[in-house]
Amino acid sequence: MVKHLPLLFSPQNHPLMQALCAKLPAEQGKLLIRRFPDGESYLKIDTDVRQRQCLVLADLSNPDSKFLPLMFLAATLKELGASAVGLVAPYLSYMRQDIRFHEGEAVTSKIFASLISEKFDWLVTVDPHLHRYHSLDEIYSIPRRVVQGAPVLAEWLAGIENVLLVGPDAESEQWVSKIAALGEHPFVVGEKTRHGDRNVSITLPDISAFTGKKAVIIDDVVSSGHTVLECLGALQRAGFTTVDCACVHGIFTDGIDQVLRDKGIRKLVSCNTVVHPSNALDVSALLVTPINVFLEEAD
Amino acid sequence: MVKHLPLLFSPQNHPLMQALCAKLPAEQGKLLIRRFPDGESYLKIDTDVRQRQCLVLADLSNPDSKFLPLMFLAATLKELGASAVGLVAPYLSYMRQDIRFHEGEAVTSKIFASLISEKFDWLVTVDPHLHRYHSLDEIYSIPRRVVQGAPVLAEWLAGIENVLLVGPDAESEQWVSKIAALGEHPFVVGEKTRHGDRNVSITLPDISAFTGKKAVIIDDVVSSGHTVLECLGALQRAGFTTVDCACVHGIFTDGIDQVLRDKGIRKLVSCNTVVHPSNALDVSALLVTPINVFLEEAD
Repeated sequence: MVKHLPLLFSPQNHPLMQALCAKLPAEQGKLLIRRFPDGESYLKIDTDVRQRQCLVLADLSNPDSKFLPLMFLAATLKELGASAVGLVAPYLSYMRQDIRFHEGEAVTSKIFASLISEKFDWLVTVDPHLHRYHSLDEIYSIPRRVVQGAPVLAEWLAGIENVLLVGPDAESEQWVSKIAALGEHPFVVGEKTRHGDRNVSITLPDISAFTGKKAVIIDDVVSSGHTVLECLGALQRAGFTTVDCACVHGIFTDGIDQVLRDKGIRKLVSCNTVVHPSNALDVSALLVTPINVFLEEAD
Repeated sequence: MVKHLPLLFSPQNHPLMQALCAKLPAEQGKLLIRRFPDGESYLKIDTDVRQRQCLVLADLSNPDSKFLPLMFLAATLKELGASAVGLVAPYLSYMRQDIRFHEGEAVTSKIFASLISEKFDWLVTVDPHLHRYHSLDEIYSIPRRVVQGAPVLAEWLAGIENVLLVGPDAESEQWVSKIAALGEHPFVVGEKTRHGDRNVSITLPDISAFTGKKAVIIDDVVSSGHTVLECLGALQRAGFTTVDCACVHGIFTDGIDQVLRDKGIRKLVSCNTVVHPSNALDVSALLVTPINVFLEEAD
Protein backbone atom coordinates (compact mmCIF):
# COMPACT_ATOMS: atom_id res chain seq x y z
CA MET A 1 0.00 0.00 0.00
CA VAL A 2 1.30 3.42 -0.96
CA LYS A 3 1.87 5.63 2.11
CA HIS A 4 0.41 9.07 1.44
CA LEU A 5 1.99 12.21 2.86
CA PRO A 6 -0.04 14.43 5.20
CA LEU A 7 -1.82 17.30 3.43
CA LEU A 8 -1.36 20.96 4.27
CA PHE A 9 -4.18 23.41 3.47
CA SER A 10 -4.13 27.18 3.88
CA PRO A 11 -7.26 29.31 3.51
CA GLN A 12 -5.15 32.44 2.97
CA ASN A 13 -2.16 31.11 1.00
CA HIS A 14 -0.01 31.74 4.07
CA PRO A 15 3.62 32.52 3.13
CA LEU A 16 4.81 29.71 5.41
CA MET A 17 3.10 27.16 3.13
CA GLN A 18 6.04 26.51 0.82
CA ALA A 19 8.64 26.37 3.60
CA LEU A 20 6.54 23.98 5.66
CA CYS A 21 5.86 21.70 2.69
CA ALA A 22 9.61 21.62 2.01
CA LYS A 23 10.60 20.89 5.61
CA LEU A 24 7.78 18.55 6.67
CA PRO A 25 6.77 15.24 5.31
CA ALA A 26 3.67 16.97 3.86
CA GLU A 27 2.31 18.17 0.54
CA GLN A 28 0.02 21.06 -0.33
CA GLY A 29 -3.66 20.20 -0.63
CA LYS A 30 -5.76 21.99 -3.24
CA LEU A 31 -8.34 24.32 -1.74
CA LEU A 32 -10.65 26.82 -3.42
CA ILE A 33 -12.24 29.52 -1.26
CA ARG A 34 -14.30 32.39 -2.63
CA ARG A 35 -17.18 34.63 -1.62
CA PHE A 36 -20.59 34.57 -3.26
CA PRO A 37 -22.08 37.96 -4.21
CA ASP A 38 -24.21 37.79 -1.02
CA GLY A 39 -21.09 37.67 1.17
CA GLU A 40 -21.29 33.97 2.01
CA SER A 41 -18.20 31.79 1.63
CA TYR A 42 -17.79 28.88 -0.75
CA LEU A 43 -15.16 26.18 -0.14
CA LYS A 44 -14.06 23.26 -2.26
CA ILE A 45 -11.33 20.80 -1.36
CA ASP A 46 -9.80 19.45 -4.55
CA THR A 47 -7.53 16.77 -3.11
CA ASP A 48 -8.70 13.36 -1.88
CA VAL A 49 -8.28 13.55 1.92
CA ARG A 50 -9.66 10.13 2.86
CA GLN A 51 -7.62 8.48 5.61
CA ARG A 52 -4.97 11.18 5.36
CA GLN A 53 -3.74 13.47 8.11
CA CYS A 54 -4.57 17.10 7.30
CA LEU A 55 -3.02 20.31 8.61
CA VAL A 56 -4.64 23.72 8.28
CA LEU A 57 -2.17 26.61 8.20
CA ALA A 58 -4.25 29.66 9.14
CA ASP A 59 -3.57 33.36 9.41
CA LEU A 60 -5.70 34.41 12.39
CA SER A 61 -4.87 38.13 12.37
CA ASN A 62 -8.07 40.19 11.93
CA PRO A 63 -9.86 36.97 12.76
CA ASP A 64 -13.59 37.69 12.57
CA SER A 65 -14.15 37.39 8.82
CA LYS A 66 -11.76 34.41 8.60
CA PHE A 67 -13.35 32.36 11.36
CA LEU A 68 -16.41 30.87 9.68
CA PRO A 69 -14.49 29.71 6.56
CA LEU A 70 -11.98 28.09 8.96
CA MET A 71 -14.81 26.20 10.69
CA PHE A 72 -16.20 25.15 7.29
CA LEU A 73 -12.77 23.86 6.23
CA ALA A 74 -12.13 21.83 9.39
CA ALA A 75 -15.62 20.31 9.42
CA THR A 76 -15.49 19.46 5.71
CA LEU A 77 -12.06 17.79 5.96
CA LYS A 78 -13.49 15.55 8.69
CA GLU A 79 -16.68 14.85 6.70
CA LEU A 80 -14.61 13.89 3.66
CA GLY A 81 -12.70 11.32 5.69
CA ALA A 82 -9.48 12.99 6.90
CA SER A 83 -7.99 10.87 9.67
CA ALA A 84 -7.02 13.93 11.74
CA VAL A 85 -7.15 17.71 11.28
CA GLY A 86 -4.52 19.82 13.05
CA LEU A 87 -4.38 23.60 13.21
CA VAL A 88 -1.11 25.43 12.61
CA ALA A 89 -1.87 29.01 13.66
CA PRO A 90 1.46 30.88 13.69
CA TYR A 91 -0.41 33.80 15.29
CA LEU A 92 -3.13 32.80 17.73
CA SER A 93 -5.80 35.48 18.04
CA TYR A 94 -8.22 36.16 20.91
CA MET A 95 -5.69 35.76 23.71
CA ARG A 96 -6.11 39.22 25.24
CA GLN A 97 -9.53 39.13 26.88
CA ASP A 98 -8.50 36.48 29.40
CA ILE A 99 -10.62 37.62 32.35
CA ARG A 100 -13.81 39.61 32.87
CA PHE A 101 -12.18 42.96 33.65
CA HIS A 102 -15.65 44.52 34.00
CA GLU A 103 -18.96 42.84 34.78
CA GLY A 104 -20.76 41.71 31.62
CA GLU A 105 -17.71 41.37 29.37
CA ALA A 106 -17.34 38.42 27.05
CA VAL A 107 -14.24 36.37 27.94
CA THR A 108 -13.54 35.91 24.24
CA SER A 109 -10.34 33.89 24.71
CA LYS A 110 -12.25 31.01 26.33
CA ILE A 111 -15.14 31.01 23.86
CA PHE A 112 -12.78 31.19 20.88
CA ALA A 113 -10.62 28.38 22.30
CA SER A 114 -13.65 26.20 22.85
CA LEU A 115 -14.88 26.69 19.26
CA ILE A 116 -11.42 25.87 17.87
CA SER A 117 -11.08 22.86 20.17
CA GLU A 118 -14.36 21.42 18.88
CA LYS A 119 -13.27 21.35 15.26
CA PHE A 120 -9.52 20.59 15.37
CA ASP A 121 -7.58 17.66 16.80
CA TRP A 122 -4.43 19.54 17.81
CA LEU A 123 -2.88 23.00 17.70
CA VAL A 124 0.60 24.39 17.08
CA THR A 125 1.24 28.10 17.52
CA VAL A 126 4.05 30.59 18.06
CA ASP A 127 4.25 32.67 21.26
CA PRO A 128 0.59 33.03 22.20
CA HIS A 129 -0.02 36.16 24.27
CA LEU A 130 -0.10 34.39 27.64
CA HIS A 131 -0.56 37.01 30.28
CA ARG A 132 -2.87 35.96 33.07
CA TYR A 133 -3.12 32.42 31.70
CA HIS A 134 -0.02 30.40 32.50
CA SER A 135 -0.54 28.02 29.63
CA LEU A 136 -2.90 27.30 26.72
CA ASP A 137 -3.97 24.25 28.74
CA GLU A 138 -6.28 26.50 30.71
CA ILE A 139 -8.47 27.26 27.69
CA TYR A 140 -7.68 24.80 24.85
CA SER A 141 -8.92 21.28 25.44
CA ILE A 142 -7.07 19.74 22.47
CA PRO A 143 -3.38 18.75 22.56
CA ARG A 144 -1.23 21.79 21.81
CA ARG A 145 2.40 22.73 21.42
CA VAL A 146 3.84 26.21 21.62
CA VAL A 147 6.87 27.40 19.68
CA GLN A 148 8.97 30.24 21.07
CA GLY A 149 10.09 32.94 18.67
CA ALA A 150 12.97 33.95 20.98
CA PRO A 151 15.66 31.94 19.14
CA VAL A 152 15.04 33.67 15.78
CA LEU A 153 14.92 37.10 17.44
CA ALA A 154 18.15 36.31 19.33
CA GLU A 155 19.79 35.16 16.11
CA TRP A 156 18.83 38.41 14.37
CA LEU A 157 20.19 40.45 17.32
CA ALA A 158 23.50 38.62 17.08
CA GLY A 159 24.15 40.74 13.97
CA ILE A 160 23.89 44.02 15.92
CA GLU A 161 26.62 45.03 18.38
CA ASN A 162 26.36 46.92 21.62
CA VAL A 163 22.61 46.74 22.18
CA LEU A 164 20.23 47.44 25.04
CA LEU A 165 16.97 45.45 24.81
CA VAL A 166 13.88 47.35 25.94
CA GLY A 167 10.60 45.71 26.90
CA PRO A 168 7.96 48.45 26.91
CA ASP A 169 5.89 46.94 29.72
CA ALA A 170 5.54 44.13 32.23
CA GLU A 171 3.71 41.92 29.70
CA SER A 172 6.76 42.00 27.40
CA GLU A 173 9.20 41.02 30.15
CA GLN A 174 8.90 37.30 29.50
CA TRP A 175 10.02 37.80 25.89
CA VAL A 176 12.73 40.39 26.40
CA SER A 177 14.32 38.53 29.34
CA LYS A 178 14.43 35.28 27.36
CA ILE A 179 16.01 36.92 24.30
CA ALA A 180 18.46 38.88 26.47
CA ALA A 181 19.58 35.66 28.14
CA LEU A 182 20.11 33.91 24.79
CA GLY A 183 22.38 36.70 23.51
CA GLU A 184 23.79 37.94 26.82
CA HIS A 185 22.41 41.43 26.18
CA PRO A 186 21.47 43.88 28.91
CA PHE A 187 17.74 44.66 29.12
CA VAL A 188 15.30 46.98 30.86
CA VAL A 189 11.51 46.86 31.17
CA GLY A 190 9.23 49.91 31.18
CA GLU A 191 5.94 50.49 32.86
CA LYS A 192 2.74 51.01 30.83
CA THR A 193 -0.33 52.96 31.83
CA ARG A 194 -3.30 52.31 29.52
CA HIS A 195 -5.78 55.15 29.03
CA GLY A 196 -7.62 53.56 26.07
CA ASP A 197 -7.18 51.18 23.09
CA ARG A 198 -4.88 53.64 21.34
CA ASN A 199 -3.77 55.76 24.28
CA VAL A 200 -0.98 54.48 26.50
CA SER A 201 1.99 56.03 28.26
CA ILE A 202 5.34 54.35 28.97
CA THR A 203 7.77 55.15 31.77
CA LEU A 204 11.29 53.72 31.50
CA PRO A 205 13.62 53.13 34.44
CA ASP A 206 16.86 55.19 34.65
CA ILE A 207 18.85 54.05 31.60
CA SER A 208 21.53 56.75 31.60
CA ALA A 209 24.19 54.06 32.21
CA PHE A 210 23.39 52.63 28.75
CA THR A 211 23.67 55.83 26.69
CA GLY A 212 25.54 55.17 23.44
CA LYS A 213 24.11 51.71 23.04
CA LYS A 214 21.68 50.83 20.26
CA ALA A 215 18.24 50.36 21.75
CA VAL A 216 16.07 47.52 20.44
CA ILE A 217 12.42 47.50 21.50
CA ILE A 218 11.18 43.91 21.89
CA ASP A 219 7.51 42.89 22.05
CA ASP A 220 5.42 39.84 21.28
CA VAL A 221 2.61 41.57 19.34
CA VAL A 222 2.60 45.02 17.73
CA SER A 223 -0.93 45.94 16.63
CA SER A 224 -1.94 49.60 17.03
CA GLY A 225 1.78 50.36 17.60
CA HIS A 226 1.09 52.97 20.27
CA THR A 227 3.06 51.12 22.94
CA VAL A 228 6.11 51.02 20.66
CA LEU A 229 5.61 54.70 19.71
CA GLU A 230 5.51 55.77 23.35
CA CYS A 231 8.53 53.62 24.16
CA LEU A 232 10.43 55.17 21.24
CA GLY A 233 9.60 58.65 22.55
CA ALA A 234 10.84 57.73 26.04
CA LEU A 235 14.10 56.36 24.58
CA GLN A 236 14.61 59.47 22.42
CA ARG A 237 14.06 61.71 25.45
CA ALA A 238 16.66 59.62 27.29
CA GLY A 239 19.16 60.41 24.53
CA PHE A 240 19.07 57.21 22.47
CA THR A 241 19.57 58.02 18.78
CA THR A 242 19.51 54.51 17.29
CA VAL A 243 16.30 52.61 18.07
CA ASP A 244 15.22 49.37 16.34
CA CYS A 245 12.12 47.29 17.00
CA ALA A 246 11.74 43.51 16.74
CA CYS A 247 8.52 41.67 17.44
CA VAL A 248 7.18 38.18 17.05
CA HIS A 249 3.78 39.08 15.57
CA GLY A 250 3.54 42.29 13.54
CA ILE A 251 -0.10 43.20 12.88
CA PHE A 252 0.60 46.91 12.36
CA THR A 253 -2.93 48.32 12.12
CA ASP A 254 -3.69 51.26 9.81
CA GLY A 255 -0.18 51.57 8.35
CA ILE A 256 1.33 52.25 11.78
CA ASP A 257 4.59 50.61 10.61
CA GLN A 258 5.23 53.63 8.38
CA VAL A 259 4.50 55.99 11.28
CA LEU A 260 6.99 54.07 13.43
CA ARG A 261 9.69 54.52 10.78
CA ASP A 262 8.81 58.18 10.29
CA LYS A 263 9.12 58.80 14.02
CA GLY A 264 12.59 57.29 14.13
CA ILE A 265 12.50 53.47 14.30
CA ARG A 266 15.55 52.49 12.22
CA LYS A 267 14.97 48.78 11.64
CA LEU A 268 11.54 47.21 12.09
CA VAL A 269 11.44 43.41 11.89
CA SER A 270 8.86 40.73 12.61
CA CYS A 271 8.53 36.96 12.31
CA ASN A 272 6.62 35.56 9.34
CA THR A 273 3.71 34.50 11.56
CA VAL A 274 1.52 37.36 10.26
CA VAL A 275 2.03 38.38 6.63
CA HIS A 276 3.72 41.80 6.53
CA PRO A 277 6.54 43.53 4.62
CA SER A 278 8.54 43.66 7.87
CA ASN A 279 8.75 39.83 7.97
CA ALA A 280 12.50 39.17 8.22
CA LEU A 281 12.56 36.32 10.72
CA ASP A 282 11.54 32.86 9.55
CA VAL A 283 9.84 30.55 12.05
CA SER A 284 9.30 27.61 9.68
CA ALA A 285 12.20 25.57 11.09
CA LEU A 286 10.86 26.07 14.61
CA LEU A 287 7.37 24.87 13.63
CA VAL A 288 8.55 21.63 12.07
CA THR A 289 9.47 19.79 15.28
CA PRO A 290 6.14 20.10 17.15
CA ILE A 291 4.13 19.43 13.98
CA ASN A 292 6.14 16.27 13.38
CA VAL A 293 5.43 15.11 16.92
CA PHE A 294 1.68 15.31 16.22
CA LEU A 295 2.03 13.66 12.80
CA GLU A 296 4.04 10.79 14.27
CA GLU A 297 1.74 10.31 17.26
CA ALA A 298 -1.26 9.96 14.96
CA ASP A 299 0.52 7.72 12.50
CA MET B 1 -41.08 38.58 43.54
CA VAL B 2 -40.93 41.01 40.63
CA LYS B 3 -41.41 39.26 37.29
CA HIS B 4 -38.77 40.54 34.85
CA LEU B 5 -39.51 40.88 31.14
CA PRO B 6 -37.42 38.92 28.63
CA LEU B 7 -34.45 40.87 27.24
CA LEU B 8 -33.84 41.56 23.57
CA PHE B 9 -30.26 42.17 22.36
CA SER B 10 -29.16 43.12 18.87
CA PRO B 11 -25.50 43.14 17.84
CA GLN B 12 -26.28 45.40 14.87
CA ASN B 13 -29.04 47.64 16.22
CA HIS B 14 -31.47 45.90 13.89
CA PRO B 15 -34.34 48.20 12.82
CA LEU B 16 -36.85 45.61 14.07
CA MET B 17 -35.62 46.17 17.66
CA GLN B 18 -38.04 48.96 18.57
CA ALA B 19 -41.08 47.33 16.94
CA LEU B 20 -40.39 43.98 18.63
CA CYS B 21 -39.89 45.59 22.04
CA ALA B 22 -43.20 47.40 21.59
CA LYS B 23 -45.12 44.30 20.47
CA LEU B 24 -43.55 41.65 22.68
CA PRO B 25 -43.43 41.36 26.38
CA ALA B 26 -39.69 42.21 26.17
CA GLU B 27 -37.33 45.07 26.83
CA GLN B 28 -34.08 46.07 25.14
CA GLY B 29 -30.91 44.84 26.83
CA LYS B 30 -27.84 47.04 26.82
CA LEU B 31 -25.01 45.68 24.70
CA LEU B 32 -21.71 47.25 23.72
CA ILE B 33 -19.81 45.76 20.77
CA ARG B 34 -16.68 47.27 19.29
CA ARG B 35 -13.53 46.20 17.51
CA PHE B 36 -10.04 46.50 19.00
CA PRO B 37 -7.35 48.00 16.75
CA ASP B 38 -6.12 44.45 16.01
CA GLY B 39 -9.50 43.50 14.51
CA GLU B 40 -10.74 41.42 17.43
CA SER B 41 -14.21 42.02 18.84
CA TYR B 42 -15.05 43.24 22.33
CA LEU B 43 -18.48 42.66 23.87
CA LYS B 44 -19.99 43.87 27.10
CA ILE B 45 -23.52 43.13 28.28
CA ASP B 46 -24.68 45.99 30.49
CA THR B 47 -27.97 44.54 31.73
CA ASP B 48 -28.28 41.91 34.45
CA VAL B 49 -29.42 38.78 32.58
CA ARG B 50 -29.48 36.31 35.47
CA GLN B 51 -32.51 33.99 35.31
CA ARG B 52 -33.98 36.01 32.47
CA GLN B 53 -34.96 34.82 29.03
CA CYS B 54 -32.82 36.49 26.36
CA LEU B 55 -33.46 36.96 22.65
CA VAL B 56 -30.77 37.89 20.14
CA LEU B 57 -32.08 39.78 17.11
CA ALA B 58 -29.36 39.31 14.49
CA ASP B 59 -28.82 40.59 10.97
CA LEU B 60 -27.15 37.65 9.23
CA SER B 61 -26.68 39.21 5.80
CA ASN B 62 -22.97 39.25 4.86
CA PRO B 63 -22.57 36.82 7.72
CA ASP B 64 -18.86 35.98 7.99
CA SER B 65 -17.63 38.98 9.96
CA LYS B 66 -20.77 38.94 12.17
CA PHE B 67 -20.59 35.29 13.13
CA LEU B 68 -17.90 35.23 15.82
CA PRO B 69 -19.38 38.21 17.75
CA LEU B 70 -22.73 36.37 17.62
CA MET B 71 -21.14 33.26 19.14
CA PHE B 72 -19.49 35.43 21.82
CA LEU B 73 -22.82 37.05 22.65
CA ALA B 74 -24.76 33.79 22.95
CA ALA B 75 -22.07 32.08 25.03
CA THR B 76 -21.67 35.08 27.34
CA LEU B 77 -25.42 35.42 27.95
CA LYS B 78 -25.43 31.78 29.07
CA GLU B 79 -22.30 32.23 31.22
CA LEU B 80 -23.87 35.25 32.90
CA GLY B 81 -26.91 33.23 33.88
CA ALA B 82 -29.58 33.81 31.21
CA SER B 83 -32.25 31.13 31.57
CA ALA B 84 -32.58 30.68 27.78
CA VAL B 85 -31.10 32.34 24.69
CA GLY B 86 -33.21 32.39 21.51
CA LEU B 87 -32.12 33.60 18.08
CA VAL B 88 -34.39 35.84 16.04
CA ALA B 89 -32.74 35.91 12.61
CA PRO B 90 -35.18 37.65 10.25
CA TYR B 91 -32.83 36.63 7.41
CA LEU B 92 -31.19 33.24 7.82
CA SER B 93 -27.92 33.00 5.92
CA TYR B 94 -26.10 29.93 4.62
CA MET B 95 -29.17 28.16 3.22
CA ARG B 96 -27.95 27.88 -0.39
CA GLN B 97 -25.21 25.28 -0.28
CA ASP B 98 -27.55 22.50 0.76
CA ILE B 99 -25.87 19.60 -1.03
CA ARG B 100 -22.40 18.77 -2.31
CA PHE B 101 -22.96 19.78 -5.95
CA HIS B 102 -19.35 18.87 -6.71
CA GLU B 103 -17.01 16.50 -4.86
CA GLY B 104 -15.05 18.28 -2.12
CA GLU B 105 -17.48 21.16 -1.54
CA ALA B 106 -18.30 22.30 1.98
CA VAL B 107 -22.02 21.83 2.71
CA THR B 108 -22.00 25.14 4.56
CA SER B 109 -25.72 25.11 5.44
CA LYS B 110 -25.26 22.06 7.68
CA ILE B 111 -22.07 23.25 9.37
CA PHE B 112 -23.54 26.72 9.97
CA ALA B 113 -26.76 25.22 11.37
CA SER B 114 -24.83 22.98 13.70
CA LEU B 115 -22.75 25.90 15.06
CA ILE B 116 -25.91 27.98 15.63
CA SER B 117 -27.72 25.03 17.21
CA GLU B 118 -24.90 24.58 19.75
CA LYS B 119 -25.15 28.10 21.09
CA PHE B 120 -28.86 28.98 20.92
CA ASP B 121 -31.91 27.35 22.45
CA TRP B 122 -34.39 28.14 19.72
CA LEU B 123 -34.67 29.95 16.37
CA VAL B 124 -37.27 32.12 14.68
CA THR B 125 -36.72 33.24 11.09
CA VAL B 126 -38.60 34.56 8.07
CA ASP B 127 -38.77 32.53 4.85
CA PRO B 128 -35.50 30.62 4.91
CA HIS B 129 -34.35 29.70 1.42
CA LEU B 130 -35.58 26.09 1.57
CA HIS B 131 -34.87 24.53 -1.78
CA ARG B 132 -33.69 20.95 -1.55
CA TYR B 133 -34.34 20.85 2.19
CA HIS B 134 -38.03 20.47 2.96
CA SER B 135 -37.71 22.01 6.40
CA LEU B 136 -35.16 23.51 8.76
CA ASP B 137 -35.61 20.34 10.83
CA GLU B 138 -33.19 18.63 8.48
CA ILE B 139 -30.26 20.81 9.57
CA TYR B 140 -31.19 22.71 12.78
CA SER B 141 -31.36 20.56 15.88
CA ILE B 142 -32.92 23.26 18.10
CA PRO B 143 -36.66 24.07 18.15
CA ARG B 144 -37.45 26.47 15.35
CA ARG B 145 -40.39 28.35 13.89
CA VAL B 146 -40.61 29.84 10.43
CA VAL B 147 -42.59 32.97 9.58
CA GLN B 148 -43.88 33.43 6.06
CA GLY B 149 -43.49 36.84 4.47
CA ALA B 150 -46.29 36.10 1.95
CA PRO B 151 -49.03 37.92 3.93
CA VAL B 152 -47.16 41.27 3.97
CA LEU B 153 -46.27 40.94 0.28
CA ALA B 154 -49.90 40.08 -0.52
CA GLU B 155 -51.10 43.05 1.50
CA TRP B 156 -48.77 45.38 -0.41
CA LEU B 157 -49.98 43.93 -3.73
CA ALA B 158 -53.59 44.62 -2.75
CA GLY B 159 -52.81 48.29 -3.45
CA ILE B 160 -51.92 47.62 -7.09
CA GLU B 161 -54.61 46.71 -9.61
CA ASN B 162 -54.45 44.43 -12.61
CA VAL B 163 -51.18 42.62 -11.86
CA LEU B 164 -49.36 39.57 -13.17
CA LEU B 165 -46.99 38.02 -10.64
CA VAL B 166 -43.77 36.67 -12.11
CA GLY B 167 -41.49 34.18 -10.37
CA PRO B 168 -38.16 34.24 -12.21
CA ASP B 169 -37.36 30.57 -11.63
CA ALA B 170 -38.49 27.27 -10.14
CA GLU B 171 -37.00 28.15 -6.73
CA SER B 172 -39.28 31.20 -6.48
CA GLU B 173 -42.43 29.24 -7.32
CA GLN B 174 -43.25 28.43 -3.68
CA TRP B 175 -43.34 32.14 -2.85
CA VAL B 176 -45.09 33.47 -5.94
CA SER B 177 -47.78 30.78 -5.88
CA LYS B 178 -48.55 31.44 -2.21
CA ILE B 179 -48.81 35.21 -2.71
CA ALA B 180 -50.86 34.77 -5.88
CA ALA B 181 -53.33 32.57 -3.99
CA LEU B 182 -53.68 35.09 -1.15
CA GLY B 183 -54.56 37.91 -3.55
CA GLU B 184 -56.15 35.87 -6.35
CA HIS B 185 -53.61 37.20 -8.86
CA PRO B 186 -52.52 35.33 -11.97
CA PHE B 187 -48.86 34.21 -11.93
CA VAL B 188 -46.22 32.67 -14.17
CA VAL B 189 -42.84 31.13 -13.38
CA GLY B 190 -39.76 31.40 -15.58
CA GLU B 191 -36.87 29.06 -16.08
CA LYS B 192 -33.36 29.97 -15.01
CA THR B 193 -30.09 28.73 -16.48
CA ARG B 194 -27.09 29.58 -14.30
CA HIS B 195 -23.76 30.17 -16.05
CA GLY B 196 -21.96 31.64 -13.01
CA ASP B 197 -22.52 33.56 -9.74
CA ARG B 198 -23.45 36.70 -11.65
CA ASN B 199 -24.39 35.22 -15.00
CA VAL B 200 -27.86 33.76 -15.43
CA SER B 201 -30.47 33.69 -18.16
CA ILE B 202 -34.24 33.59 -17.70
CA THR B 203 -36.81 32.20 -20.12
CA LEU B 204 -40.46 33.10 -19.51
CA PRO B 205 -43.44 31.09 -20.75
CA ASP B 206 -45.77 32.67 -23.34
CA ILE B 207 -47.33 35.62 -21.49
CA SER B 208 -48.90 37.42 -24.43
CA ALA B 209 -52.36 36.83 -22.89
CA PHE B 210 -51.35 39.14 -19.99
CA THR B 211 -50.12 42.14 -22.02
CA GLY B 212 -51.37 45.36 -20.45
CA LYS B 213 -51.11 44.06 -16.91
CA LYS B 214 -48.57 45.42 -14.43
CA ALA B 215 -45.87 42.80 -13.91
CA VAL B 216 -44.53 42.28 -10.39
CA ILE B 217 -41.43 40.13 -10.05
CA ILE B 218 -41.54 38.16 -6.78
CA ASP B 219 -38.55 36.45 -5.17
CA ASP B 220 -37.47 35.38 -1.70
CA VAL B 221 -33.92 36.77 -1.80
CA VAL B 222 -32.42 39.36 -4.15
CA SER B 223 -28.65 39.50 -3.72
CA SER B 224 -26.58 40.05 -6.89
CA GLY B 225 -29.87 41.04 -8.59
CA HIS B 226 -28.95 39.38 -11.87
CA THR B 227 -31.92 37.04 -11.80
CA VAL B 228 -34.28 40.02 -11.42
CA LEU B 229 -32.42 41.96 -14.13
CA GLU B 230 -32.73 39.08 -16.60
CA CYS B 231 -36.40 38.62 -15.69
CA LEU B 232 -37.01 42.34 -16.23
CA GLY B 233 -35.38 42.12 -19.67
CA ALA B 234 -37.57 39.15 -20.62
CA LEU B 235 -40.70 41.04 -19.50
CA GLN B 236 -39.69 44.16 -21.42
CA ARG B 237 -39.08 42.10 -24.57
CA ALA B 238 -42.56 40.60 -24.08
CA GLY B 239 -44.03 44.12 -24.13
CA PHE B 240 -44.55 44.81 -20.42
CA THR B 241 -43.95 48.48 -19.68
CA THR B 242 -44.73 48.58 -15.94
CA VAL B 243 -42.57 46.18 -13.92
CA ASP B 244 -42.28 46.24 -10.10
CA CYS B 245 -40.26 43.92 -7.88
CA ALA B 246 -41.11 42.75 -4.37
CA CYS B 247 -38.89 40.42 -2.35
CA VAL B 248 -38.74 39.11 1.18
CA HIS B 249 -35.00 39.60 1.74
CA GLY B 250 -33.28 42.42 -0.15
CA ILE B 251 -29.49 42.09 0.12
CA PHE B 252 -28.80 44.07 -3.09
CA THR B 253 -25.04 43.59 -3.45
CA ASP B 254 -22.88 46.38 -4.90
CA GLY B 255 -25.69 48.95 -5.32
CA ILE B 256 -27.61 46.66 -7.70
CA ASP B 257 -30.89 48.19 -6.45
CA GLN B 258 -30.01 51.41 -8.30
CA VAL B 259 -29.16 49.44 -11.45
CA LEU B 260 -32.54 47.70 -11.20
CA ARG B 261 -34.31 51.07 -11.06
CA ASP B 262 -32.19 52.50 -13.88
CA LYS B 263 -33.07 49.52 -16.09
CA GLY B 264 -36.77 50.02 -15.54
CA ILE B 265 -38.00 48.55 -12.24
CA ARG B 266 -40.68 51.04 -11.16
CA LYS B 267 -41.23 50.08 -7.53
CA LEU B 268 -38.70 48.02 -5.59
CA VAL B 269 -39.80 46.86 -2.15
CA SER B 270 -38.48 44.45 0.46
CA CYS B 271 -39.36 43.30 3.97
CA ASN B 272 -37.43 44.79 6.87
CA THR B 273 -35.58 41.51 7.48
CA VAL B 274 -32.35 42.92 6.01
CA VAL B 275 -31.71 46.63 6.54
CA HIS B 276 -32.10 48.46 3.22
CA PRO B 277 -33.71 51.67 1.90
CA SER B 278 -36.21 49.51 -0.03
CA ASN B 279 -37.69 48.19 3.26
CA ALA B 280 -41.40 48.97 2.91
CA LEU B 281 -42.93 45.81 4.34
CA ASP B 282 -42.90 45.30 8.09
CA VAL B 283 -42.64 41.75 9.42
CA SER B 284 -42.60 42.64 13.12
CA ALA B 285 -46.24 41.66 13.70
CA LEU B 286 -45.59 38.28 12.04
CA LEU B 287 -42.59 37.58 14.26
CA VAL B 288 -44.40 38.22 17.51
CA THR B 289 -46.55 35.06 17.55
CA PRO B 290 -43.79 32.43 17.21
CA ILE B 291 -41.47 34.32 19.59
CA ASN B 292 -44.24 34.42 22.18
CA VAL B 293 -44.72 30.68 21.85
CA PHE B 294 -41.08 30.11 22.79
CA LEU B 295 -41.19 32.65 25.61
CA GLU B 296 -44.31 31.06 27.07
CA GLU B 297 -43.01 27.51 26.70
CA ALA B 298 -39.88 28.41 28.66
CA ASP B 299 -41.71 30.40 31.26
